[in-house]
Amino acid sequence: MTCWVSRLLPRSVHSLGTSSKNQRVEDCRRHHEAYGYFLPIQTRWQDSDQYGQVNNAVYYSYFDTIISHYLIRYCGLRTSLLTSPMVGFMVTNQCTSHKPISFPQVPVAALAAEKVGHSSVNYHLALFPPKATKELPSVNHWDLRDGFFSGHPKLVHFDSLACTNGSSVHVFVTPAPRKPTGLPEDFRRGLLRLVSPASV
Amino acid sequence: MTCWVSRLLPRSVHSLGTSSKNQRVEDCRRHHEAYGYFLPIQTRWQDSDQYGQVNNAVYYSYFDTIISHYLIRYCGLRTSLLTSPMVGFMVTNQCTSHKPISFPQVPVAALAAEKVGHSSVNYHLALFPPKATKELPSVNHWDLRDGFFSGHPKLVHFDSLACTNGSSVHVFVTPAPRKPTGLPEDFRRGLLRLVSPASV
Amino acid sequence: MTCWVSRLLPRSVHSLGTSSKNQRVEDCRRHHEAYGYFLPIQTRWQDSDQYGQVNNAVYYSYFDTIISHYLIRYCGLRTSLLTSPMVGFMVTNQCTSHKPISFPQVPVAALAAEKVGHSSVNYHLALFPPKATKELPSVNHWDLRDGFFSGHPKLVHFDSLACTNGSSVHVFVTPAPRKPTGLPEDFRRGLLRLVSPASV
Amino acid sequence: MTCWVSRLLPRSVHSLGTSSKNQRVEDCRRHHEAYGYFLPIQTRWQDSDQYGQVNNAVYYSYFDTIISHYLIRYCGLRTSLLTSPMVGFMVTNQCTSHKPISFPQVPVAALAAEKVGHSSVNYHLALFPPKATKELPSVNHWDLRDGFFSGHPKLVHFDSLACTNGSSVHVFVTPAPRKPTGLPEDFRRGLLRLVSPASV
Repeated sequence: MTCWVSRLLPRSVHSLGTSSKNQRVEDCRRHHEAYGYFLPIQTRWQDSDQYGQVNNAVYYSYFDTIISHYLIRYCGLRTSLLTSPMVGFMVTNQCTSHKPISFPQVPVAALAAEKVGHSSVNYHLALFPPKATKELPSVNHWDLRDGFFSGHPKLVHFDSLACTNGSSVHVFVTPAPRKPTGLPEDFRRGLLRLVSPASV
Repeated sequence: MTCWVSRLLPRSVHSLGTSSKNQRVEDCRRHHEAYGYFLPIQTRWQDSDQYGQVNNAVYYSYFDTIISHYLIRYCGLRTSLLTSPMVGFMVTNQCTSHKPISFPQVPVAALAAEKVGHSSVNYHLALFPPKATKELPSVNHWDLRDGFFSGHPKLVHFDSLACTNGSSVHVFVTPAPRKPTGLPEDFRRGLLRLVSPASV
Repeated sequence: MTCWVSRLLPRSVHSLGTSSKNQRVEDCRRHHEAYGYFLPIQTRWQDSDQYGQVNNAVYYSYFDTIISHYLIRYCGLRTSLLTSPMVGFMVTNQCTSHKPISFPQVPVAALAAEKVGHSSVNYHLALFPPKATKELPSVNHWDLRDGFFSGHPKLVHFDSLACTNGSSVHVFVTPAPRKPTGLPEDFRRGLLRLVSPASV
Repeated sequence: MTCWVSRLLPRSVHSLGTSSKNQRVEDCRRHHEAYGYFLPIQTRWQDSDQYGQVNNAVYYSYFDTIISHYLIRYCGLRTSLLTSPMVGFMVTNQCTSHKPISFPQVPVAALAAEKVGHSSVNYHLALFPPKATKELPSVNHWDLRDGFFSGHPKLVHFDSLACTNGSSVHVFVTPAPRKPTGLPEDFRRGLLRLVSPASV
């Protein structure tokens, strides 16, 4: 892998996302083992900008998609404003790209829950590009409905090193007026499946 | 299927897309048989707008995606401005929604070529929602890399009536200065596979 | 103006949007006089795709923006699902590009109401690029909050011929269950201001 | 200002963006004085997601827009892949929302350059919402073409506290193959205008 971005990054870049954690922990976050849930991401023509590569803002919409997908599919989140007792806001997030991707690549997004609080969740996220091999007998088919969990054999078809990784914090509030609301037990249980799969 | 949109449409709506063609032909365009190529579309959280359903502008990015995907995968289109001898512009398009879809549904997009000209292509497009059944043994896996062609058994898992259909015209020009350019023979051959699969 | 697109368009392109109306009426729709309301549109870096020009799907989000802006600002539309008695769906639309635009150009969008029905509205829309002159004393400031109406002196700073024009149909329904709902009198009155400013 | 988000944020949220810098510096970054360049941002209907507020991923496209706008307008950046000697990638960024915004609000984006390196630039960014007053005699007109600089009287029409702030790092490379490239002198000079306007 030629990773021109990492070589280029000034010291200050690394510090954007690393904060008080040391670099070794950050490096762990670039491997499959740090994540519990995976969802293939279909890139779109419009995701690439004038420079022919997926625009940085689009990574956040991939991350939104895997998070919402997991919450709806495995934690019982209902998203209709008209019927749901709570809505989630992504109050902060960050992301670093180590290697660009572009349409029509199909990378896989990865999700871990670092902490499940009373009304908030801290996530770690990554994107792994498909391996550049020609013979891909089974990767032709993806599970867009269920995603898959850590240890799944499909992961062998993706690079073992993330091209992009990040983190975010989700806060849940009542629809109106907006006040913090405790996470329901089922919801919390779904998220706890994703906490520290690799004990990072 | 409750199709409130169609019942509501004033007469003038239908005429937007039907032009001189009669309504019977339009009705054909809502069935699988009118299309030659299919690609599952992964909806994203951000595709839905405040009203909780996929926004109309997003349909056009789905259509762009299936078209670009087919041209790259089956017609040899190279999309890098730095190396490609031609670039395509979607100079006109139209689309009608009969039934809304929403995240995280995975509909399938459908593509037909109505006419392949010297430097332009006329397409027909549609979106078919997944069937609302519970038991979906094999639809868990999609082919995001290759798509699939008419007659494929996977189509049984999607509604037989399109929730959205439309059309568009792609014109190909040289990168700079922009002048019309004849479509290469291989490119044209790839597109001819998609002409009138149902002889509409 | 070098308008390579129009010269290139096969006959079938024109027919996508023209339907039974004749070409003369379509040509009228490319001039300021056919529109009643105008809103400058700020292009974004991400609006351009790999080919360096605003992507066709993005035009529809510009048109959504001027329509929603007008309905909120001048017709009293409330858009919160939690409090609004009606929601609008764009059930069909079409658009033709005659000349590309690109970031960071600031074109002006234009809106006309062709027909205001019981629960639906038919719009005509256009986009006019800024004139390519150097001396622009007053165009530095735009009215993003109020837009402006036909006959406004600011229009002199934009090309008199639309680079893109289209049409769409908006249908209004109750939030849940979704059933057609009559447009309130105030709402209808706001829209009637935009009917046939040039009696096309 | 009711700022439910800040009250809710778990300690770990603050640390995402603050890294080794202390909270006092972060607090400075929420005021006009920390920024040198300002550009009004026109929100779009599609920017809001199902919860009726601007989606987090969209903030990054606002930030891309003010950065690209400044580089094109004041630093001579040419963005055509076919003619430009360098292209920029946003290799890392982060953002925290303190208060949501929604369509059709017109906030102002703010930009500062923290460091201009050999081939990279570190930015600080913020978004200030319009004041909620009724009488806004002059804010009806915005400068979408030139933006404005620190100390401009228009700033009085915006909240003095940012609703969102973040940072990012831009790395510049040659178009093909992609290797780091030194920033041209003019380009660097344009950026130095934005370094530490408030000596934070």
